[in-house]
Amino acid sequence: MPSLLKNSIPLSLQHVEINDAFWSPKLQVNREVTIPAIYQRCKETGRIDAWKLTWRPGQPREPHVFWDSDVAKWIEAAAHSLATHPEANLEAALDELIDTIARAQQPEGYLNTHFTVVHPEWRWKNLRDWHELYCAGHLIEAAVAYFHATGKRKFLDTVCRYVDHIESVFGAQPGQKRGYDGHEEIELALVKLFQATGEKRYLQLAKYFVDERGRQPHYFDVEAHERGEEPASYWAKTHEYTQSHIPVREQTLPVGHAVRGMYLYAAMADLAVAYDEVELLTACKCIWQHLVHKRMYVTGGIGSSRANEGHTADYDLPNATAYAETCAAIGLVLFTQRLQQIEPDAAYADVLERALYNGCLSGVALSGDRFFYENPLESRGQQQRWEWHECSCCPPNMARLLAALGQYIYAQHANEFFVHLYIGSAAQFDIAGKNVKLTQQSEYPWNGKIIFQIESEHEVDFTLALRIPGWCRSAEIKVNGEEVALAPLMQKGYAKLQRRWRTGDLVELNLAMPVERVQAHPQVRANCGRIALQRGPLIYGLEEIDNGKNLNDLVLASEEKLVVKFEPDLLGGVSVITGTAKRRRLAPWQDQLYRADAADTEKIFFKAVPYFSWANRAPGEMVVWMREG
Amino acid sequence: MPSLLKNSIPLSLQHVEINDAFWSPKLQVNREVTIPAIYQRCKETGRIDAWKLTWRPGQPREPHVFWDSDVAKWIEAAAHSLATHPEANLEAALDELIDTIARAQQPEGYLNTHFTVVHPEWRWKNLRDWHELYCAGHLIEAAVAYFHATGKRKFLDTVCRYVDHIESVFGAQPGQKRGYDGHEEIELALVKLFQATGEKRYLQLAKYFVDERGRQPHYFDVEAHERGEEPASYWAKTHEYTQSHIPVREQTLPVGHAVRGMYLYAAMADLAVAYDEVELLTACKCIWQHLVHKRMYVTGGIGSSRANEGHTADYDLPNATAYAETCAAIGLVLFTQRLQQIEPDAAYADVLERALYNGCLSGVALSGDRFFYENPLESRGQQQRWEWHECSCCPPNMARLLAALGQYIYAQHANEFFVHLYIGSAAQFDIAGKNVKLTQQSEYPWNGKIIFQIESEHEVDFTLALRIPGWCRSAEIKVNGEEVALAPLMQKGYAKLQRRWRTGDLVELNLAMPVERVQAHPQVRANCGRIALQRGPLIYGLEEIDNGKNLNDLVLASEEKLVVKFEPDLLGGVSVITGTAKRRRLAPWQDQLYRADAADTEKIFFKAVPYFSWANRAPGEMVVWMREG
Repeated sequence: MPSLLKNSIPLSLQHVEINDAFWSPKLQVNREVTIPAIYQRCKETGRIDAWKLTWRPGQPREPHVFWDSDVAKWIEAAAHSLATHPEANLEAALDELIDTIARAQQPEGYLNTHFTVVHPEWRWKNLRDWHELYCAGHLIEAAVAYFHATGKRKFLDTVCRYVDHIESVFGAQPGQKRGYDGHEEIELALVKLFQATGEKRYLQLAKYFVDERGRQPHYFDVEAHERGEEPASYWAKTHEYTQSHIPVREQTLPVGHAVRGMYLYAAMADLAVAYDEVELLTACKCIWQHLVHKRMYVTGGIGSSRANEGHTADYDLPNATAYAETCAAIGLVLFTQRLQQIEPDAAYADVLERALYNGCLSGVALSGDRFFYENPLESRGQQQRWEWHECSCCPPNMARLLAALGQYIYAQHANEFFVHLYIGSAAQFDIAGKNVKLTQQSEYPWNGKIIFQIESEHEVDFTLALRIPGWCRSAEIKVNGEEVALAPLMQKGYAKLQRRWRTGDLVELNLAMPVERVQAHPQVRANCGRIALQRGPLIYGLEEIDNGKNLNDLVLASEEKLVVKFEPDLLGGVSVITGTAKRRRLAPWQDQLYRADAADTEKIFFKAVPYFSWANRAPGEMVVWMREG
Repeated sequence: MPSLLKNSIPLSLQHVEINDAFWSPKLQVNREVTIPAIYQRCKETGRIDAWKLTWRPGQPREPHVFWDSDVAKWIEAAAHSLATHPEANLEAALDELIDTIARAQQPEGYLNTHFTVVHPEWRWKNLRDWHELYCAGHLIEAAVAYFHATGKRKFLDTVCRYVDHIESVFGAQPGQKRGYDGHEEIELALVKLFQATGEKRYLQLAKYFVDERGRQPHYFDVEAHERGEEPASYWAKTHEYTQSHIPVREQTLPVGHAVRGMYLYAAMADLAVAYDEVELLTACKCIWQHLVHKRMYVTGGIGSSRANEGHTADYDLPNATAYAETCAAIGLVLFTQRLQQIEPDAAYADVLERALYNGCLSGVALSGDRFFYENPLESRGQQQRWEWHECSCCPPNMARLLAALGQYIYAQHANEFFVHLYIGSAAQFDIAGKNVKLTQQSEYPWNGKIIFQIESEHEVDFTLALRIPGWCRSAEIKVNGEEVALAPLMQKGYAKLQRRWRTGDLVELNLAMPVERVQAHPQVRANCGRIALQRGPLIYGLEEIDNGKNLNDLVLASEEKLVVKFEPDLLGGVSVITGTAKRRRLAPWQDQLYRADAADTEKIFFKAVPYFSWANRAPGEMVVWMREG
């Protein structure tokens, strides 16, 4: 499929070997704790056995409309893990589960536990609310991942049969439903299925779902009428909730449920490339710009409101009630990576990195078996990670993101090789007709010195494009020990080292990484008079266990010197930021709620820890945005 | 009924004539605009005609379970108005409405529109949710007020027959329901009915309802079972919502729906006096102390959460989402006045005054025909007063409070005469066997100089107890031009001038009234680093119309001099507070949401207006708590 849109391709998992002091332990926990724990929970709750289709009315553990997606995301996570860390037992377990899933497929190709054993009569009756195509999408993504990891086609063939059935049900032909899912997901999955199989019908079906979205007469209203319901009684009140209020090409704002939106926009970006359609790309960019400039937490969290699990108004970013679902931050990574593939601009990787190191990573405990669904930026201590949740979308989503981390580091476009993220690893790729191995070593994110080493049997001409992060005010690069002038090399945030590379070439990148005091735009009411501490890509926060209570009352002097110290025994090894601050003494207040006397303050030493690592010790208060004055 | 508890009695409406530059115009608007407007809305919406009992199923304007209370509160407001400002037309209209209400009474005495014409089969079936006794309570209060205003007994006799019926239905005898209302109100109303009629059964019924509350087996669970419902499926989830989670004497915290609580606690205070019961008083004081020291806005607003229209946790006082229902602030006035009657301590009048001048008064527009249900302390401009609301409890509640304002100024206990509020007025009272007229003159709340003049045919020995407000750091008193030493006279916040008074005696009270910068307790997270401007009893706020946007970003220097100026043409004549502040410039931000550069600020002149007067001009932002640094 030809495309006039520029397009860089991420390196696949098999071509990237991660070996990193920060990430490798987390990936190990993901493989050894998180993925097994999620399987265990899926098993205990009935999600695995649901595929046997033996559930009967009146029995416990009734398959829920979401359940298939939880299992599918777990399979996807396990498949990514197999791609980099083959494991015979896991593969055997997956094969067995896939056999069960394949047996659950109905003669016409239909494949969904809830609508097979619980409510077969409601099949395709409520796309708006019931996640039927959403579950199909996750099955597709899982099957594609398993195919890429193992080369085995069985699951892929199963989902292809399902998609063939879906294609017969949905479309513009007489007798077909002109529908699309209330929870987007199948669209981006179908693009992956097309890429894996080469079958263009799948791409066309993705385009059909995206094009149809928001058209009048509105499909969700039509199907509501068919169910005998008043469309006006829709619980979410607006089709913005599902990004179907207007056709997608007319959309300019991120609205509604945040995860749904991110999945849709990701598919729109995929289709813009596949169909070479600038209009679709323009909508994506417009939405993305608006999102990251007006509606994104400093952690990369998005979707500030619990009410719609989504977006509200510009600059409405409350801290304590921040919803900022883990899945939404993951969705932002997915969407952003696609835009980055189209236009290599470090602004994308800046956002992706912000979300990855902060708003995503906070979603899983260091232990790997407890999770956050919501990621507030301030807490009174009531937030604790939970083991499992009835709506358990986030844990397997996080597991599949981590297992696929290798896909986010590098990308290639013609003879340009992009380094988007600084994660210790070795990349294998073919460029300018030669095979190259690039090794990256660093103590990132604790330290901004990164060393790259080239290995290639032959000398090779290509451009090594190193991202200079937006948070970095001063960077320098040495090639084989010799400093190069950076300014002439910079293109959209990347330092482009174009030269003939040979084995042994060493590139040293130094990113200055002082503590920054970040302010939010004056219209972010919650953060007026406050700063967030950031160092490198990491946002920091204060926890009660280190700093006592009343963290909102701490005030950092604007001239206060801040000290960074690596604590190897704290939270798996983190750099902390310390300094002194003031806090009002409580004693003089006695039982007064309001008083006009001058405040009596005490000086305290504070310690800030990386936001992603909060809530791993004793429960207590937390703040990201600290008063400054 | 003998009582060992000390008790001061407020002067009745007929004995206080208000003549005050601040309040008289507001009371005139209440009489001439608000009371007629509420009648008009009650008429248009069907609330008045509902009493004709002609509504039939399928017709519009189905009488709602709340409606009777709206009409009753209107009658009460109109009756208070007649007490001070007789008006033949209004009295005739009231007589006609009362005739209609009396005709609506059922043979057994029952009197409720909804449960007579809409759902007679549901009578007394859901006390928890359906406000049946609540409506009865407001009818009782209205009838008592009308009796006091006119001496006419018809309405009083009607409600007595209704109460006789209620007394037959509820009680501990076999065949009676051991119930009480989910929305307290009838309890305090029954105390008033007892006081008006001398009929002790009414007091006993009030005591029964209060004593029964929260006992096990829980009545609301019993009646839920009788309706075939699972008590556990109660929408409010907890009986704290109705203050019936435990028996009232065990209650120590203000919980649940704020208005309901205030009405209950008011009745508890009444019963503590009537039955000379210290235990009940102790519960009241404990709840009141907790409320005003940990859960009250600086405006006297209470009930911070919209979810339960009520209380949440200590120090949880968010500004933008403050619920702070007008009715709840009014309820705080009612509860506080009762405690003040039991123990004359200026701490009570301080709270009553705070609520009255701020959180109550903000509930009605200067024009008198638009209302706030919620009274936030910060707004983006989306809050506007509305003309009418389906749940329209607040407008007539405010109307009855204002029409009865005269009852809150003075109180008498033996030979002590208390001045609780500084409102220009003339009071007539008998003390030490003599008749006295006390005239109060001032420009309060704009000015702290208040002059009292005594008229009495005979010399008279009594104690004039003048409240020295908690907000005042420096007061002086002159009697007949001669300064008196204040300290020896002070008792629980009152300066007690005990002497032989004679006609022509002049007392001049001077309350220093500088602008105060009020801080909130450090545990009030929302207000860390912020101050509220207060002058005298008034809390101030900044509005966008005077100060531009991004009011949360304004920062007042702690040494900034603040200037007070009376503006006769602004908002009906108010003193404003002006000064200079800083605000970050928006231009340098361009489209950045976060940045680490030093802020570029601009100096601006700000003007703060009294909180009660906000939202009377163009829609826009508002803040009470201003940054200080």
